[in-house]
Amino acid sequence: MNIDSINNGIVIDHIQAGKAMEIYNYLGLEDLDCSVAIIKNVRSKKSGKKDIIKIDNDIDVDMDVLGYIDTNITANIIKDGIIIEKKHMELPERIVNIIKCNNPRCITSVERELDQVFNLTDKENKVYRCKYCEMQAKK
Amino acid sequence: MNIDSINNGIVIDHIQAGKAMEIYNYLGLEDLDCSVAIIKNVRSKKSGKKDIIKIDNDIDVDMDVLGYIDTNITANIIKDGIIIEKKHMELPERIVNIIKCNNPRCITSVERELDQVFNLTDKENKVYRCKYCEMQAKK
Repeated sequence: MNIDSINNGIVIDHIQAGKAMEIYNYLGLEDLDCSVAIIKNVRSKKSGKKDIIKIDNDIDVDMDVLGYIDTNITANIIKDGIIIEKKHMELPERIVNIIKCNNPRCITSVERELDQVFNLTDKENKVYRCKYCEMQAKK
Repeated sequence: MNIDSINNGIVIDHIQAGKAMEIYNYLGLEDLDCSVAIIKNVRSKKSGKKDIIKIDNDIDVDMDVLGYIDTNITANIIKDGIIIEKKHMELPERIVNIIKCNNPRCITSVERELDQVFNLTDKENKVYRCKYCEMQAKK
């Protein structure tokens, strides 16, 4: 199963099979008015199976979210039917308002207007810690 | 945006725009190993916008779920690349284990092994009532 090309928009490719919905929710794609396709369990030469998301509009996608979820993801930016940019993901050094600190004694639990900021403290093991209380983020 | 045809499977079409995820969850499509595409906000001559779900496998889809959610939905059954059946939905007379009774004093709240059964008591207004306590189902 495949989807025909889009003219202007973004193709988020090489998503680990089963993760498309997580990305869909993180990126808030539910709220978009444009056409969005989520294709799960597409056969892939590289990884056996993968998910793909196509967004038929030129929106800003938070690449930090994608990098945080999976660095194997690629994002193709399409303009006038042509791929004008292929973005590869990396682990972001800092993520803002993507995940929440679970520590009930963290200041972010009390001061709700604070941004939820996590810093990458161990790249190899993909460890993020809350900027305020240093609690390790749970994946 | 469109999706090329599938060889064997089901195309759930004319879903009210924004309702595809609800159907995806009700039908438990998350658990399928086959390729599944959800396309939201597809332009439609009939209704302006619609959602479509394509399932690339010959699975049993609970038509009562689809009829309960929206009677405008159609389901095309595809075999060897050809539509062999086009199913139109109707409000099911009875739905089993699709929604739950919210009445805390209903016997289904105590006897968890009981099926959740609702009967259609008012077709015009689409009213379903719990078989046991007659509580009206909330949509």
